[in-house]
Amino acid sequence: MPSPGRFITLEGGEGAGKSTQARYLAAHLAGRGLPVLLTREPGGAPGAEAMRRVLLSGAGLDPVAEALLVFAARRDHWVATIRPALAAGIWVVSDRFADSSRAYQGHAQGVKAGTIESLAWIALEGQEPDLTVVLDLPVELGLARARQRGVAADRYERLDAGFHARVREGFRAIAAAEPGRCALLDAAGAPELLAARIAALVDERLP
Amino acid sequence: MPSPGRFITLEGGEGAGKSTQARYLAAHLAGRGLPVLLTREPGGAPGAEAMRRVLLSGAGLDPVAEALLVFAARRDHWVATIRPALAAGIWVVSDRFADSSRAYQGHAQGVKAGTIESLAWIALEGQEPDLTVVLDLPVELGLARARQRGVAADRYERLDAGFHARVREGFRAIAAAEPGRCALLDAAGAPELLAARIAALVDERLP
Repeated sequence: MPSPGRFITLEGGEGAGKSTQARYLAAHLAGRGLPVLLTREPGGAPGAEAMRRVLLSGAGLDPVAEALLVFAARRDHWVATIRPALAAGIWVVSDRFADSSRAYQGHAQGVKAGTIESLAWIALEGQEPDLTVVLDLPVELGLARARQRGVAADRYERLDAGFHARVREGFRAIAAAEPGRCALLDAAGAPELLAARIAALVDERLP
Repeated sequence: MPSPGRFITLEGGEGAGKSTQARYLAAHLAGRGLPVLLTREPGGAPGAEAMRRVLLSGAGLDPVAEALLVFAARRDHWVATIRPALAAGIWVVSDRFADSSRAYQGHAQGVKAGTIESLAWIALEGQEPDLTVVLDLPVELGLARARQRGVAADRYERLDAGFHARVREGFRAIAAAEPGRCALLDAAGAPELLAARIAALVDERLP
């Protein structure tokens, strides 16, 4: 039996650099000699990827339907990809996870916190990441960075600044409420410097 | 303001004749001069139809992921199609609704009853059909009828007889527990006779 892997999530609003930092972190862990799986949400398993396409298709779901669908995809991601990897001793780095539902569908779109936590319990049976890195950035800077990526604005990026301000406040509230699991990092600086800070944080918390 | 419409669901296992009876019932209600919407699950709204395709694609979801996805589709069906129709005074007849999750994902596939009821509450906020007609049929007869339809066996029809026996017992238990909402009818006879019995039942309960 291998010792179980660890589960690290990166969270934050648009343009915070989650995908870039997830890649840096996976490379850092591999450099420590650890087996690493890099994954992302929504998606990360065949059924969940099909649900991602529904979410991104602009099907016009209300926030409760969207929360149900995101947690259906997350359940598949957890059961088909993350849980077996952890059991096999693999360290898993996920670009977004359940905190994104708390911030987006909950804080920003008004789904009740009790509803989100019920769905999280149903989908994940109480399992949480070992460490969650919350990348924090002023909304205008994040949106400017997202636009600079040159990809088509996704459905969240098109929403107004008030929406994104609520997302940011949601993530900050989550990090403040769960300091043992979460670390809030300022994501305004150079990506390489942020990657070094994340690597040091992970090495300290998950040696 | 029109008087609100009524919401009638047809439930039962494979081959019970739900789709045929739903059409007969819609025609009967139209004959009473009522505005009628005939719909079915999974599906019945644009987002829900996209989720139906994921469900039927054989994505290999575990029962909990399937329950979350079915209720995401049901929420969309409720919010985008059923609720506005009822508010406009339209009578809605749905081929399957929440009882199918209780019977299939719950009784037959082992998702806890408390989980199903939590999802129903989140998706429907306590709303239930005005009348649910449960079509009851011996498993072997239902499967033989489903095969005779000449369509490709869907993923449920391919499952073993024990699965279908649990579905049937689930529907019978639901009807027994909620006699005010549900009526259990023997679906073994000729479709025209069953249609007449359903029409009489609806006229009596929802005059």
